[in-house]
Amino acid sequence: MATLRDLYSDEKTKGLDTNFGVDYVINYKIPQEGEFPFASLIEALTHVGLTTEVRRGDKSSVLVFIKIADKFLADQVYRSRLQDWLQGARTNTADKDLSQALRDEPVSDAERLRLVYLLMVKPKNEGGAGITPESGKWKHVASIFPLHNHSFNRQWIKRVSRKGQTDENDLDEIRDKFGESVAFYFAFMQTYFKFLVVPAAAGFGAWMFLGQFSWLYALVSCLWSVIFFEFWKQREVDLAVQWGVRGVSNIQHPRPQFEFERQAEDPITGEPVKIYSPIKRLQTQLLQIPFAAACIVVLGTLIVTCNSLEIFINEVYNGPFQSYLAFLPTVILVVMTPTFSTVLTKFATRLTEMENYETIDAHHAALVQKEFVLNFLTSYMALFFTTFVYLPFGDHLTPYLDFWRTTAQKITPKDVNFQTQEFSINPERISKQMFYFTVTAQVVNFATEVIVPYVKRQVFQEVREVQSKMSKEDSAAKIKDQPEEAAFLERVRNEAELETYDVTGDYREMVIQFGYLSLFSVAWPLTACCFLVNNWVEMRSDAVKIAISSRRPIPWRADSIGPWLNALGFLSWLGSITSASIVFLCRSAGKGDGPRGTPGSIQAWGLLLSILLSEHFYFGAQFVVRLVMKKLDSPGLQREKKERFMMKKRLLEENLGQGVSDQAATPGIEKTEMITMQALEDEARRISTQGHGGAEEAFWLRQRGMAETIQIGRNLISQSISGNTTKA
Amino acid sequence: MATLRDLYSDEKTKGLDTNFGVDYVINYKIPQEGEFPFASLIEALTHVGLTTEVRRGDKSSVLVFIKIADKFLADQVYRSRLQDWLQGARTNTADKDLSQALRDEPVSDAERLRLVYLLMVKPKNEGGAGITPESGKWKHVASIFPLHNHSFNRQWIKRVSRKGQTDENDLDEIRDKFGESVAFYFAFMQTYFKFLVVPAAAGFGAWMFLGQFSWLYALVSCLWSVIFFEFWKQREVDLAVQWGVRGVSNIQHPRPQFEFERQAEDPITGEPVKIYSPIKRLQTQLLQIPFAAACIVVLGTLIVTCNSLEIFINEVYNGPFQSYLAFLPTVILVVMTPTFSTVLTKFATRLTEMENYETIDAHHAALVQKEFVLNFLTSYMALFFTTFVYLPFGDHLTPYLDFWRTTAQKITPKDVNFQTQEFSINPERISKQMFYFTVTAQVVNFATEVIVPYVKRQVFQEVREVQSKMSKEDSAAKIKDQPEEAAFLERVRNEAELETYDVTGDYREMVIQFGYLSLFSVAWPLTACCFLVNNWVEMRSDAVKIAISSRRPIPWRADSIGPWLNALGFLSWLGSITSASIVFLCRSAGKGDGPRGTPGSIQAWGLLLSILLSEHFYFGAQFVVRLVMKKLDSPGLQREKKERFMMKKRLLEENLGQGVSDQAATPGIEKTEMITMQALEDEARRISTQGHGGAEEAFWLRQRGMAETIQIGRNLISQSISGNTTKA
Repeated sequence: MATLRDLYSDEKTKGLDTNFGVDYVINYKIPQEGEFPFASLIEALTHVGLTTEVRRGDKSSVLVFIKIADKFLADQVYRSRLQDWLQGARTNTADKDLSQALRDEPVSDAERLRLVYLLMVKPKNEGGAGITPESGKWKHVASIFPLHNHSFNRQWIKRVSRKGQTDENDLDEIRDKFGESVAFYFAFMQTYFKFLVVPAAAGFGAWMFLGQFSWLYALVSCLWSVIFFEFWKQREVDLAVQWGVRGVSNIQHPRPQFEFERQAEDPITGEPVKIYSPIKRLQTQLLQIPFAAACIVVLGTLIVTCNSLEIFINEVYNGPFQSYLAFLPTVILVVMTPTFSTVLTKFATRLTEMENYETIDAHHAALVQKEFVLNFLTSYMALFFTTFVYLPFGDHLTPYLDFWRTTAQKITPKDVNFQTQEFSINPERISKQMFYFTVTAQVVNFATEVIVPYVKRQVFQEVREVQSKMSKEDSAAKIKDQPEEAAFLERVRNEAELETYDVTGDYREMVIQFGYLSLFSVAWPLTACCFLVNNWVEMRSDAVKIAISSRRPIPWRADSIGPWLNALGFLSWLGSITSASIVFLCRSAGKGDGPRGTPGSIQAWGLLLSILLSEHFYFGAQFVVRLVMKKLDSPGLQREKKERFMMKKRLLEENLGQGVSDQAATPGIEKTEMITMQALEDEARRISTQGHGGAEEAFWLRQRGMAETIQIGRNLISQSISGNTTKA
Repeated sequence: MATLRDLYSDEKTKGLDTNFGVDYVINYKIPQEGEFPFASLIEALTHVGLTTEVRRGDKSSVLVFIKIADKFLADQVYRSRLQDWLQGARTNTADKDLSQALRDEPVSDAERLRLVYLLMVKPKNEGGAGITPESGKWKHVASIFPLHNHSFNRQWIKRVSRKGQTDENDLDEIRDKFGESVAFYFAFMQTYFKFLVVPAAAGFGAWMFLGQFSWLYALVSCLWSVIFFEFWKQREVDLAVQWGVRGVSNIQHPRPQFEFERQAEDPITGEPVKIYSPIKRLQTQLLQIPFAAACIVVLGTLIVTCNSLEIFINEVYNGPFQSYLAFLPTVILVVMTPTFSTVLTKFATRLTEMENYETIDAHHAALVQKEFVLNFLTSYMALFFTTFVYLPFGDHLTPYLDFWRTTAQKITPKDVNFQTQEFSINPERISKQMFYFTVTAQVVNFATEVIVPYVKRQVFQEVREVQSKMSKEDSAAKIKDQPEEAAFLERVRNEAELETYDVTGDYREMVIQFGYLSLFSVAWPLTACCFLVNNWVEMRSDAVKIAISSRRPIPWRADSIGPWLNALGFLSWLGSITSASIVFLCRSAGKGDGPRGTPGSIQAWGLLLSILLSEHFYFGAQFVVRLVMKKLDSPGLQREKKERFMMKKRLLEENLGQGVSDQAATPGIEKTEMITMQALEDEARRISTQGHGGAEEAFWLRQRGMAETIQIGRNLISQSISGNTTKA
């Protein structure tokens, strides 16, 4: 395993400097009993043109090393590019000459690894080996993973930690090594980080001069979120064009688990496709409604209970152990929320499987959507409770707090007499909560995401080494590694132990963060400043996470950030509503000095008006920003159009010759004059031979040629003029 | 001129049964003095390959008849189709073989006429004759128009009046004769008419059972407008694909009046394009804000004045001449509104010219947008005044009505004493107004649109015939028509006198009608029923208008209803707000039996909540409908995708041969097994000759071939198992 130290030291650490040309490693778990199709694995791989070598893995596995022959790779690349073109994901056809095509557009690591992976997992009828890790016939295939390119990783981590920012070149390199799917995450981070400077500055200003709950800050924040969202939508397209992946989301990989009802002909390609009744799927999808309701009830009850308990303990209860009891609600929350979340996530996964999607992308998007609902609830519900229940209607909470009081009285022994104090609303509560979510929670998150796995890994490695020594003593018969491979194999064994990197988790984190900013930052304007600091660390820790604490991801392609875009749009819209509500409610709650006897109806009137105005400000801003963005014409789209145009022109030239193609591009007639006379004569001959009809023939032959027409026209005109003159 | 009678009688009326093969007629006004470039007109036409004949026109014009030679037409068609393909408006390239291409896809009347027209008006550097009617050098060219195909018109009018509905075949025929631009209007009418049945039924039901201002009807109407709008958006695309015009809106015709500042290279085609600074244009566009404000002030003042005067006269004034005076406000409105509108429309036209758009479409869209603002104000402002001022705040109007009272008292002679009665709000007012707008106004409109021009034409024709007889007696020198052409020429002279048909006016009418339905129909649910009847007549009268009372339009292409789509969307959205407001306001105004002392704040609260709920119902419905529409996959888009795919596959086949193309479409490897061994050997040889590095070479050569790998793998596995067993 590579450690940060390994990557940083200039002396090449053993086993990290070369991959021995290995494309993929299969970690094959040795079954304890029964039949196992090891031979058929090797056969399947060899049949699709892959070279294999087998080595000892850890105690209970063997490692199969896989390489593709260059000749086959070229073939695969060419075929895949042609297919992309057919599906509309490429503007250029690959050159007819294979080696020329590869010279024009060299194969990146990511393309190579993607194609090799597809070759292994595609079904046999589509020319792949049909290996499905961890399922069915191939349940012993624990994982298939590419090896890290540690010399690149070393440079990358160094560059990232030295520079302030990821730039375009970095993104291109990330794309070449880890694929567009990961590169899009870093591009998003980069854009988001740059944009964060605006609300951070505005928030700092608001905090200094305007205080909490400022209308002005709310407007700026709303406008910012609209501009950011629209800008990113365009940037996404530009990047997709730059990376030549625009439209790849239309090329779908079928989900192996998909169960079909019948086969039909694809309306576009005419190939047979598998069909599952959309009505049936819709019926399953409708289960999402009770599921969402269940999530709201379960998590809502938990959060409301803990929050009201906390309010009771902190602001009402004044008896013994108050300072210890204050931690009780937090402890309950910290323990119970992940537990419930895990259970509900399992439900969500099961539900998504039941929805039986045809493609991996559709399945993934449906899952992300459900998880987003869960995350939304766990992340924001406490804040919603505070802003929409505690602050405006705190006074009405007293009866509910009485419940805790009686419960507390029942629980405590009769002889202990505890005190309660009068309850009063504390407007600082929301700021405290925001501080918790933006600072404490992010630090905790960093710890669980980076430090804990690191420590865990170190410990596990120690344990494994000890075990391995023991087992070596145990079975002396064990084959020893070849000395020149030993370091490399040790490193591969360690990489096999690492966790898979899933970019979804990182996106989720950023989107939820964007949500705090958009929904609640009026309550604590320093939010964006904290996120700015956090994300500076995050970008580095994410790089370390991919390079060191995870197996190298399969470099999938992507042409956008996928379902997260909708989530961003939703949060941005919802922000316009919550911000207005928070500002209105908390401003009126803050004016607690005066009599609080203002009629509820006037409050409702103001609240609704605030929401209405704010939401229409949001829509208006969106309309204007979109209009401006459209006028500015995205460079990516322009480039794409140009490529399409050039490709077509080239095709015309090839098929019809230079001249026709030029004429079509710029229509111009130069040679007509000579021909006209002849054509007219032809026409006349045609008419006279066909005898099309005396009157028509006569009509067109009355004036023969241009000169006669002009002459007769002049006569008519002068007659008319003279006629008029005579009359006058 | 054709009359309805001519078209209906089965015996062929003279002059209507043949067009003598004429494509276009140029009406050339004879100048009273100075130089006139008649010769250069004929030369310009002949040079681009057109045959000409000249005949006497009316007293002050000559008629130039134009025909294209078939050979040139084929060339033009081929070139234009290639260009469409280059610009992305066609999926198929035209066949290499010209005559084959024309056989595969025959040239419709509309295509022929469009290309001939373009040939005449395109600038010289683009291969046209550069004729710009009524401006510059060509100011004597009063009009260029194609001749009606009266035998088609006869059948069309007959079919339309006999059948209940226009069907797909009719649309295709309209498209073939009048071009897609007109065909889209009839397609829109057809869809709109069919959809109208729903709100008509719902409205009738509501009127019978629920009365005015029903929540339920408002919801149904809102949902209907969303579904109609989204459905039409898809239908538009389907039609565009079916007619092969999808994307033609990207092929822009330059506006001859456009003034450019500098030239630059087109980023896509690399050709020189003319540029006008968008900043300058934006500055001019900002003038739209004062323009809109001026429109609101001018038309608003007029409408508010007349409305309050009308209220005063009808509901307060009780003195002499009341029954005559009641017409006064209407008369003022009827006289002043068109006057002001005309002035403001001139401003709008001037403003649009100053905005200096590059293309005809952009110019047209900008003009339509401004006119829509004007139409919006003149059509809906009176109703807005009633619903948002008169009904809710009628009580507060009393002081303003006092103004009229004092004015009336000042005007009337002292001895006439007139009475006023107590003012009270009359909720029936809005229904009366709606009745006026949906019935009276539509009837008046029909009269001005169809009957008045018809009568005018008849009278003018009589006058002209008398004049012509007189002038014949006057100047006996006048050339007489050839007897076999006389009827035809007389008919052409009449057609030259007709007005140009502009589809914009018809669209405007329908969109404004849709607005009444969407914005105010809750106030009078029978609205849709009236429109249903009206549109049944409208469809027929529009057909008659095109076929008889207008010159045949230039058959332009279009791929949508253009700027009207946005207007529809806007009205549909605004409808969700006004309907909710009307229902809420009028329901509370209607509850006049109880004390009207309910506090204004509660009303405001309810009003805002109604608007908020209704608008979100609208957005929700839109979201769901769009989702469903997307799932349903438009047949047009599917067809387009299929055509693209097939075209690409064909190209691959032509360039690379059948085999490769099949492989790319369905990637499959069949022949690898034999090659694998050889490739591996090649690879091994390559490594050993290049000496790529001892360790790597050794790594991959340790197990030679599949069999060895399997053997060694099995050994490793069995050792591991036995090791475990020993331990256990």
